[in-house]
Amino acid sequence: MRLVTFEIPGIPGKLSRIGALTPDGRIVDLTVAYRLMLVRSGMTKSAADRISGALVPPDMLLFIEGGGGSLEAARKAFDWALEATVPDGEMCMFSQGAVAIRSPIPRPPLLRDFMAFEEHLQNIYPKLGRSIPPEWYNLPVYYKGNPGSTGGDGDDIRIPSYEQELDYEFEMAFVIGVGGADIRPEDAFKHIYGYMIYNDFSARSIQEREMTVGLGPAKGKDFQRGHVLGPYLVTADEISDVYNLTMTARVNGKEICRTNTRTIHWKFEDMIAHASRDEELVPGEVFGTGTVGNGSGKELGKLLKAGDVIELTVEGLGTLRNKVISNR
Amino acid sequence: MRLVTFEIPGIPGKLSRIGALTPDGRIVDLTVAYRLMLVRSGMTKSAADRISGALVPPDMLLFIEGGGGSLEAARKAFDWALEATVPDGEMCMFSQGAVAIRSPIPRPPLLRDFMAFEEHLQNIYPKLGRSIPPEWYNLPVYYKGNPGSTGGDGDDIRIPSYEQELDYEFEMAFVIGVGGADIRPEDAFKHIYGYMIYNDFSARSIQEREMTVGLGPAKGKDFQRGHVLGPYLVTADEISDVYNLTMTARVNGKEICRTNTRTIHWKFEDMIAHASRDEELVPGEVFGTGTVGNGSGKELGKLLKAGDVIELTVEGLGTLRNKVISNR
Repeated sequence: MRLVTFEIPGIPGKLSRIGALTPDGRIVDLTVAYRLMLVRSGMTKSAADRISGALVPPDMLLFIEGGGGSLEAARKAFDWALEATVPDGEMCMFSQGAVAIRSPIPRPPLLRDFMAFEEHLQNIYPKLGRSIPPEWYNLPVYYKGNPGSTGGDGDDIRIPSYEQELDYEFEMAFVIGVGGADIRPEDAFKHIYGYMIYNDFSARSIQEREMTVGLGPAKGKDFQRGHVLGPYLVTADEISDVYNLTMTARVNGKEICRTNTRTIHWKFEDMIAHASRDEELVPGEVFGTGTVGNGSGKELGKLLKAGDVIELTVEGLGTLRNKVISNR
Repeated sequence: MRLVTFEIPGIPGKLSRIGALTPDGRIVDLTVAYRLMLVRSGMTKSAADRISGALVPPDMLLFIEGGGGSLEAARKAFDWALEATVPDGEMCMFSQGAVAIRSPIPRPPLLRDFMAFEEHLQNIYPKLGRSIPPEWYNLPVYYKGNPGSTGGDGDDIRIPSYEQELDYEFEMAFVIGVGGADIRPEDAFKHIYGYMIYNDFSARSIQEREMTVGLGPAKGKDFQRGHVLGPYLVTADEISDVYNLTMTARVNGKEICRTNTRTIHWKFEDMIAHASRDEELVPGEVFGTGTVGNGSGKELGKLLKAGDVIELTVEGLGTLRNKVISNR
């Protein structure tokens, strides 16, 4: 399934919901669909309300925590909604234009971002006057983003007040389904719930300054909607070979990067095994791959400016589109 | 008030509660005390249950989100509990030995750790063969910890399986009460809820290796109970001058560090103003100061080994005590 988090107007304010995309691009509200399916099967409304809220909750993090049982229920509801006639006064299907799409997981419990593509390092380190640090070949290093600063497909991304230009970083992300500690590489894929595209927007001037101190990026990454995820969360069963997906980036419609996930050096199973050493991973955590080779303006010599539209496409994962807006 | 999160045996499993320390060292369960106080005032049990659960919830993060109204209610309940005769079958007062103390906030929404003490840098950078990076004087840099890997007072801290020795880092932490973006330095203290001691345990060998790559510390800090906070969260009103508190550290009873918070270079208001630029701080976020001068074994030439007991004391904030245990 292609899962989304979306918002609809409600009382007393916006309602955040989860849904799945239909083949023709509409959104099924999974919680409502499951509730209606239960009522249609003869269950009382109050029981259907209670059980749908618990098993297919309208919050993606709670839904992921529900694991295979919740996913199976959601699939049944999705299939049912494609065929069903919904009672008057009820609604479980929306056109995409009628709702606001958010990050599939609006606030993940943790957001680690690795640096898994060697070509990105081959391009970046010489610009910093250094060669690739030897330890990069020994350890899958990562920094941690601010899970409270996510954005979604279609969001406008404001250049931070303390920056002149903004850069994009073309990455792929995966989400932990089943948690655990000390996970072996050969078991790692059992812990992956699904995949998303990740645009890790970066404020380069301040990032370069703060990285000279040694603690990694801080305000170079931490600003409102700096971590854009989406457009949807594709469940792992839909991707047959995650290491053979075409990746393309466009700025204002012009292709500026074309590559493939097969260029990855540190694999997802390496990241999971490394991160989970002496530590518990939890459902809903997001792992980013770091920038793919030539997947940033820094590498290509051209940052983003206000008005630019950046589109990242990964085969099977859709297209993540954002516009950069001025800070003035 | 000196606020704690503690666990008691319950049905169907451990219950996590919040409390406040009495002058003689007992713990008042704030939610239960508030409920009993409401019942004693003539309210029905069911209304008292509902209102106490909402206004003085047993979860520290939800309690902090409740702001001044929740704090005021908790204070009244605390004062009431010190005098009250509690009905048979009810219990709102515990001796410390009877409960397990956890991190005051078991899982903060975010954990930023700065590097605010110049003396620590003067001690550390020469050991790395460099001088203090000039940008440190321009920007209050930080890294982000794993909010899922906190520990509390009394917890045994296991040396990670991938390390030989462990180091402590003697820090102070503060907690955001009222959130906000673009907070001015002169308003910053209005956003501070309270203070804690922070021992940022560090796996030095892997930390040094991963920091050569440039993204900052990862598994050097991310391991079970690596971020120890406590022993309690002291509300801001109890500390008259946060920049004049004596700080002492002991290993196995022997004092190894004595200093004062006045040695801080980057002040709390600098950290809050910087972190909140173009970004929303939320209630319950934790900010760490980074290591005070001579506040780590790295600086003093002696890391911790299994069996060592490390005690960190800050005037007005209590003593945070942990034992290091072997990974074998």
